[in-house]
Amino acid sequence: MKQDKKETALVAGGAGFIGSHLCRALLRQGFDVICLDNLLTARRSNLLALEAERGFSFVRGDVVDPLPAVITERGADITRIYNLACAASPPLYQADPEHTMLTNVVGTDRLLRLAERAGARFLLSSTSEVYGDPERHPQSEEYRGSVSCTGPRACYDEGKRAAEAMTFDFARSGRAEVRVARIFNTYGPHMNPDDGRVVSNLVCQALLGLPVTIYGDGSQTRSFCYVEDMVKALMLLMESDIAGDEPVNLGNPEERTIAELLDAIRAQVDREIEVEHRPLPVDDPTRRRPDIGRARALLGWAPETGLAEGLARTVDWFARELARNAPGVTKEEDAPRAAIAV
Amino acid sequence: MKQDKKETALVAGGAGFIGSHLCRALLRQGFDVICLDNLLTARRSNLLALEAERGFSFVRGDVVDPLPAVITERGADITRIYNLACAASPPLYQADPEHTMLTNVVGTDRLLRLAERAGARFLLSSTSEVYGDPERHPQSEEYRGSVSCTGPRACYDEGKRAAEAMTFDFARSGRAEVRVARIFNTYGPHMNPDDGRVVSNLVCQALLGLPVTIYGDGSQTRSFCYVEDMVKALMLLMESDIAGDEPVNLGNPEERTIAELLDAIRAQVDREIEVEHRPLPVDDPTRRRPDIGRARALLGWAPETGLAEGLARTVDWFARELARNAPGVTKEEDAPRAAIAV
Repeated sequence: MKQDKKETALVAGGAGFIGSHLCRALLRQGFDVICLDNLLTARRSNLLALEAERGFSFVRGDVVDPLPAVITERGADITRIYNLACAASPPLYQADPEHTMLTNVVGTDRLLRLAERAGARFLLSSTSEVYGDPERHPQSEEYRGSVSCTGPRACYDEGKRAAEAMTFDFARSGRAEVRVARIFNTYGPHMNPDDGRVVSNLVCQALLGLPVTIYGDGSQTRSFCYVEDMVKALMLLMESDIAGDEPVNLGNPEERTIAELLDAIRAQVDREIEVEHRPLPVDDPTRRRPDIGRARALLGWAPETGLAEGLARTVDWFARELARNAPGVTKEEDAPRAAIAV
Repeated sequence: MKQDKKETALVAGGAGFIGSHLCRALLRQGFDVICLDNLLTARRSNLLALEAERGFSFVRGDVVDPLPAVITERGADITRIYNLACAASPPLYQADPEHTMLTNVVGTDRLLRLAERAGARFLLSSTSEVYGDPERHPQSEEYRGSVSCTGPRACYDEGKRAAEAMTFDFARSGRAEVRVARIFNTYGPHMNPDDGRVVSNLVCQALLGLPVTIYGDGSQTRSFCYVEDMVKALMLLMESDIAGDEPVNLGNPEERTIAELLDAIRAQVDREIEVEHRPLPVDDPTRRRPDIGRARALLGWAPETGLAEGLARTVDWFARELARNAPGVTKEEDAPRAAIAV
């Protein structure tokens, strides 16, 4: 994966949780990186460490709108396009479902057309949500899923399914070389503290000395992949020579109960944790666990970061983040900067 | 359903097979009708009988593009918007899969926004294809389907699912009053002779004295709804006071074997029919049959036209159509006319 000559990667959604880690890893690998983000749900502060680096540029823009000239004019300089643009947390993507759908469909179309013109390779970050509320465990890529196309999650789930459809159509007709990653639960630094995920919720409550909320008895299971493992997989998939005519599940197949997760957090947080049990919501997502056989076979990839290690880094980051956001602390890095407005 | 004052209905895809029948029925019911169509797969000749009528206007345009001013300026005159815009036959919708997807997603979004601004009620013509290759028979609206979101049919199937998602999101957020019809196999006059459906194939082959093609032994079943029954259902659904928060299957639940269909055609065609058997294609669509319990309960609707009667009208129309298109016959009605170009 060493770069012979300087190539440019465009990361749409590059200020988001996974996107910002991906931008950093691409810079480390020798790419120039253009980060395109509308900053609607991502946070500029995720880019703090990157903005001073040579080869990194940030463009504020929305993939629903025509792509900014500063990007389209780069033409064949751009050899890799990663599409991570879309709010991923239910309360955030449901706040404007029309925009969520258009982000996935129109945004993916615009980036695919750019890939076609530039001769760049395109990677779509799809999601385990394409399996909906699955009736099979673990989920392999052949499983067609059980998705409601009429409910409040459909703007995201069906938007991603539609984006996959478009992406494979571009590949089938020879318009672009593509890769499609179906990303399962991922955690780590740069998660939005307010997005309602179980890891960020429990870690933040624990760090703030609040009672942590456990729904049900905590015996329900989840699978968590550490963000650096995920980013490594995305880059391996992009650079691999697989045919690109099938999606690839990426995630951690190891199931953990919520009670185990809490124990792992407790081990990292230096204070007593009080637990508040609440009834399991009716629509609590059932178990979802990736079959990563294809990723292992095609990419030689599997998650390497253990839960204790990943949580230690996550808790450390959240502790600094919460301190930074404590009342009275100035947040210079979130102030407006010179950005290319679209 | 009598109109107290003159109202205007917009029919996107109004020059198509079902659309052209709908335009006529709406005129009969007292609506002024604007037919919007890009004529990519529809045929202008379907509108022959309508273009001379008062209250009918044709606008050539593509719902993927911004709506023509002649439509947006009509504002609150428009009280009903029927979205039937999309090629529906696999070879036609697969010819430009990107356009198929955008027609469903961007087109539906533009028409929903028009409905929101005009205060019009919006009906989406969805499809039985949202059930994919179903694992349950008959299909009821709760069934989530078994759709591949990566294959060559996905541009249409997932496009329609995405269009449903957007439509229900507009309803949920109070932006528009909506209805969603899931249309199953329909046949009748104005079908495109070249679109590869079993009814048009068999009827045209029989009328032309060619051997008719039967795949397999003809024991596979299909359900066929006559187009006038379908149009009646669409208008009943539009005008009904149902909550509009759920899709409604429309189609004929009566299953017929292909051999029965051929017998019914034979009864209408005054010549010997030679049968050519071919092996059943691997991807031959499996059985699909609607559960129309919801349509019966909400609309008091069920198909009324028997297969013999519907086929008689269909064969009669195809006979005239084939004569009209015979070599040496001038087709004035398909020549370009004054249309509002977009």
